[in-house]
Amino acid sequence: MDSDYGIPRELSDLQKIRSLYQPEIPPCLQGTTVRVEFGDATTTADPTDDPTIRRAFPNTYGQPLAHFLRATAKVPDAQIITEHPPIKVGIVFCGRQSPGGHNVIWGGSEGLFAQKCVEINDEILLTYKNQGGYDLLGRTKDQIRTTEQVNAALVSCNNLKLDGLVIIGGVTSNTDAAQLAETFAVAKCPTKVVGVPVTLNGDLKNQFVETNVGFDTICKVNSQLISNVCTDALSAEKYYYFIRLMGRKASHVALECTLQSHPNMVILGEEVAASKLTLFDIATQICNAVQARAEQDKYHGVILLPEGLIESIPEVYALLKEIHGLLKQGVPSDKISSQLSPWASALFEFLPPFIRKQLLLYPESDDSAQLSQIETEKLLAYLVEAEINKRQKEGTYKGKKFNAICHFFGYQARGSLPSKFDCDYAYVLGHICYHILAAGLNGYMATVTNLKNPVNKWKCGAAPITAMMTVKRWSPNPGAVSIGKPAIHPATVDLRGKAYDLLRQNATSFLMDDIYRNPGPLQFDGPGSDAKPITLSVEDQDYMGRIKKLQEYLEQVRTIVKPGCPQEVLKAALSVMGSVTEVLAAMSASSGNNLSSI
Amino acid sequence: MDSDYGIPRELSDLQKIRSLYQPEIPPCLQGTTVRVEFGDATTTADPTDDPTIRRAFPNTYGQPLAHFLRATAKVPDAQIITEHPPIKVGIVFCGRQSPGGHNVIWGGSEGLFAQKCVEINDEILLTYKNQGGYDLLGRTKDQIRTTEQVNAALVSCNNLKLDGLVIIGGVTSNTDAAQLAETFAVAKCPTKVVGVPVTLNGDLKNQFVETNVGFDTICKVNSQLISNVCTDALSAEKYYYFIRLMGRKASHVALECTLQSHPNMVILGEEVAASKLTLFDIATQICNAVQARAEQDKYHGVILLPEGLIESIPEVYALLKEIHGLLKQGVPSDKISSQLSPWASALFEFLPPFIRKQLLLYPESDDSAQLSQIETEKLLAYLVEAEINKRQKEGTYKGKKFNAICHFFGYQARGSLPSKFDCDYAYVLGHICYHILAAGLNGYMATVTNLKNPVNKWKCGAAPITAMMTVKRWSPNPGAVSIGKPAIHPATVDLRGKAYDLLRQNATSFLMDDIYRNPGPLQFDGPGSDAKPITLSVEDQDYMGRIKKLQEYLEQVRTIVKPGCPQEVLKAALSVMGSVTEVLAAMSASSGNNLSSI
Repeated sequence: MDSDYGIPRELSDLQKIRSLYQPEIPPCLQGTTVRVEFGDATTTADPTDDPTIRRAFPNTYGQPLAHFLRATAKVPDAQIITEHPPIKVGIVFCGRQSPGGHNVIWGGSEGLFAQKCVEINDEILLTYKNQGGYDLLGRTKDQIRTTEQVNAALVSCNNLKLDGLVIIGGVTSNTDAAQLAETFAVAKCPTKVVGVPVTLNGDLKNQFVETNVGFDTICKVNSQLISNVCTDALSAEKYYYFIRLMGRKASHVALECTLQSHPNMVILGEEVAASKLTLFDIATQICNAVQARAEQDKYHGVILLPEGLIESIPEVYALLKEIHGLLKQGVPSDKISSQLSPWASALFEFLPPFIRKQLLLYPESDDSAQLSQIETEKLLAYLVEAEINKRQKEGTYKGKKFNAICHFFGYQARGSLPSKFDCDYAYVLGHICYHILAAGLNGYMATVTNLKNPVNKWKCGAAPITAMMTVKRWSPNPGAVSIGKPAIHPATVDLRGKAYDLLRQNATSFLMDDIYRNPGPLQFDGPGSDAKPITLSVEDQDYMGRIKKLQEYLEQVRTIVKPGCPQEVLKAALSVMGSVTEVLAAMSASSGNNLSSI
Repeated sequence: MDSDYGIPRELSDLQKIRSLYQPEIPPCLQGTTVRVEFGDATTTADPTDDPTIRRAFPNTYGQPLAHFLRATAKVPDAQIITEHPPIKVGIVFCGRQSPGGHNVIWGGSEGLFAQKCVEINDEILLTYKNQGGYDLLGRTKDQIRTTEQVNAALVSCNNLKLDGLVIIGGVTSNTDAAQLAETFAVAKCPTKVVGVPVTLNGDLKNQFVETNVGFDTICKVNSQLISNVCTDALSAEKYYYFIRLMGRKASHVALECTLQSHPNMVILGEEVAASKLTLFDIATQICNAVQARAEQDKYHGVILLPEGLIESIPEVYALLKEIHGLLKQGVPSDKISSQLSPWASALFEFLPPFIRKQLLLYPESDDSAQLSQIETEKLLAYLVEAEINKRQKEGTYKGKKFNAICHFFGYQARGSLPSKFDCDYAYVLGHICYHILAAGLNGYMATVTNLKNPVNKWKCGAAPITAMMTVKRWSPNPGAVSIGKPAIHPATVDLRGKAYDLLRQNATSFLMDDIYRNPGPLQFDGPGSDAKPITLSVEDQDYMGRIKKLQEYLEQVRTIVKPGCPQEVLKAALSVMGSVTEVLAAMSASSGNNLSSI
């Protein structure tokens, strides 16, 4: 390992105090014993994906959910972990750094009770607890996906005699973790693989995972800056700020920041994709907003754009696909333009040179464009300015000159000290990793649900990573259907969800009334320090808690309707259960269809 | 006044708590009576400027210093303000918004005890106390300098029957305030003009003014972001971040942020000007640093650049002067290139197109380039990349590819909630404004010294703005000397000062050892919330306190050596005072020469 990693270092006063912060853990993880209770075998959200995933993961698909509970009364099917075997664990930070990652390790090594076996010792960890970045270990630059990479990992884990390998990352890294787990199982490698949902994008979201470590911090730091810019706009009264936010394909960060800061406008990639808006539709929409504000004598504003927006615009996405196809064929970037299809070429030539250059960048390992390098905010500011000037010449816009200032907020937030929420969440996940490994589980992700409630109500568990996978289908030609590899796909913003609804209800007021709100800088003490993401708080989640509750109901029915119970009771049970199964079967079929059409 | 100003508004939880924060005030301003003590008549730092300034400001130059003290024992020359006449005050926010501006108004209106006379009432002020921005009143876009502007201000003040006009701003605005004060005095207008040093640039620094409201907050917010980027650099290990910081011509913000965050490198405009470094010297210096780090297998780093750097580079400055000259002659920007002198044209054509476009922007009202629009960070990243590629071809650089990511930090900090220090400082200055007006003083700036100590040790006073002025001299042709108008010029970083020395001592370690430090986000409670700027804390200032002390010594000499005292005592006094005056006369002459050569 590189020598600049893991060195104890000098901290500022605030960093020192933060390093002393002891995150909370829920009651189930307190004390020395933990009860593991297994649920039913898992399936995937869309039943039509089941056979494909089962084929790809014969050893690790369909494993049961695991719940970690207080070791109280004995329950059948429960396993009590009271012994704490020293286990040797490898840890990998994968992909973009996300505040809180270090606390997973802390939580994990606290759980180990055998710290001599890990090369990370107390002294080293001391200055990384509750701190940002991935600089304790550095991070991987690529996925772990090719046969060579997977085999290299297998050899390393065997040589190091690791009992467990913890993969800390987002959708791509956790998909890779599932693949490693399967490969290790086939190869009879004793190393168990565990995934941890840590990504600033907040897009590793599904039935089992409510939010990701780092998302809260990123949104708080960005919201602080967006709010400062809003105050700036209202003070200077002469600029429109176009701010692009990091967050990959999905717009979770942009949505959360909008609900925190109340900027004038946000354009979510999911809205654009759902309404199939073109680049010109979006520019026109912004122009209309600028014009409406000008009519109220307002010449300032703040507009948020997720970095994934550019790929959500249908014609730009098609252009990018063509460019990426040519790049992968080895066409040099200065020859691409001449080999594009006529319509793609027309769009490409229309775009300003700086954007052309950025669109020609080689795609990332997940096949998406290099979103952090494409200045969508500048492109839109440019198009809006052109349109406003045109309207001014035509006499339809009579206001003052339009001035735009562009920003990209991302790198300046990723390394932040993590919020209290992220510190606690990561620390608890780290603890769970230990229990997953102690229970001998392979291919699982550590999960905490009911997160919007206080830590003492959090529910700890583990879900097979394969149960979070879906399969993409697309039609390259009419009649043909291609099936992608099973993977955890980034969850997009749910346009039928409560958080988006909250945005819609307020959009007009945000646009016209400048009701800017400043959540302030991230606080560690006093007011604001316990705030959680708004998008987390408005949703009604706790899937794991409900699955558990359902299990209890079924158990109760079984207990009440035992052989020998009165005929009446049995008849009533049959009648009610009959309609219950009918309703659920019908609902499952339709929701399956819904999902596959997304 | 525009309708979006001064409306009570909805605040976030943290904003609400901040709005309840009661800033501290030093003992001298507590209670209902304040003693005003006048010092000697003021002069200017460079005696050679004295005649020019005296001619320009016959009514307001040479007024005495004022000290505001606790109303205890009676002292000759002291005036006790016990009556609190209701006075009517106009307030103007000038230029770039700076966190803390609102608190000047709060302090001022608290001091008034006659709030019905101002249109700002308690209810309005409620949601602006301790908040950022200038959105209570908005801000001026221009200077108040032309005859029309000054006359318009005179008419307004007369019509509104204002007793006082408070100008909140930086060097330009306070120079304008002095001019207004003189004009009002000539016109026998009863409105007294007071200046308040509020500027994020921190460049309104002189004997009387230790720092400016807003500087602390801006440096804290920027340092938070720079530190996050440092953590990011060390986690990803593949990028060099080039960060340009707002702060106008001087590099105070860059210096303070460097001492806070320990990035790998900072290039101060003052160093470049002093050593007459060319653009290529600077690029080479950065390249050498990149190469030295590559030899230690480090391919990441963070480099800070003040926005004023571009004007500090001699050949670029000369090019800018030519461009601005042509623009002012009305030459359209697309014709400029062909009318440049041969050497300027050669440099211009060498520069990449995006920078050419930015250099062609019309200069600002203070004749400087539009520094916030010139992407020096991109220019340097571009030059460094070209040089590294060249070295790689020649075989002198053997490391990995150089990747730069560029940022401009400015707008995202200006609207921040002010730090506790800025809240207190602004509030106390606001109080002093009231006492200045109650004492009938015109053309003064409110001052607080001994700021690095706790609030109860702060010393409150007022100094004539003209005493802070200097006169620029330059030689357009050999033999000829032009004299500029007296003005408060931005103070540059003192390369012989303690703060710069601290940087020099640590520069090598910062460069090579990645001893990044994260002061964390701005805290309002608990650790870190009472931190003050490092550049303020290391300097040994309190000029006003020392002036006061000197006065006391002189008074004691006079008391001891009264007519009738023994001959011996008188002889001793004469002997000692003779050498004192000789030494001081010699020192004054040489420091005057020093100053005029800068």
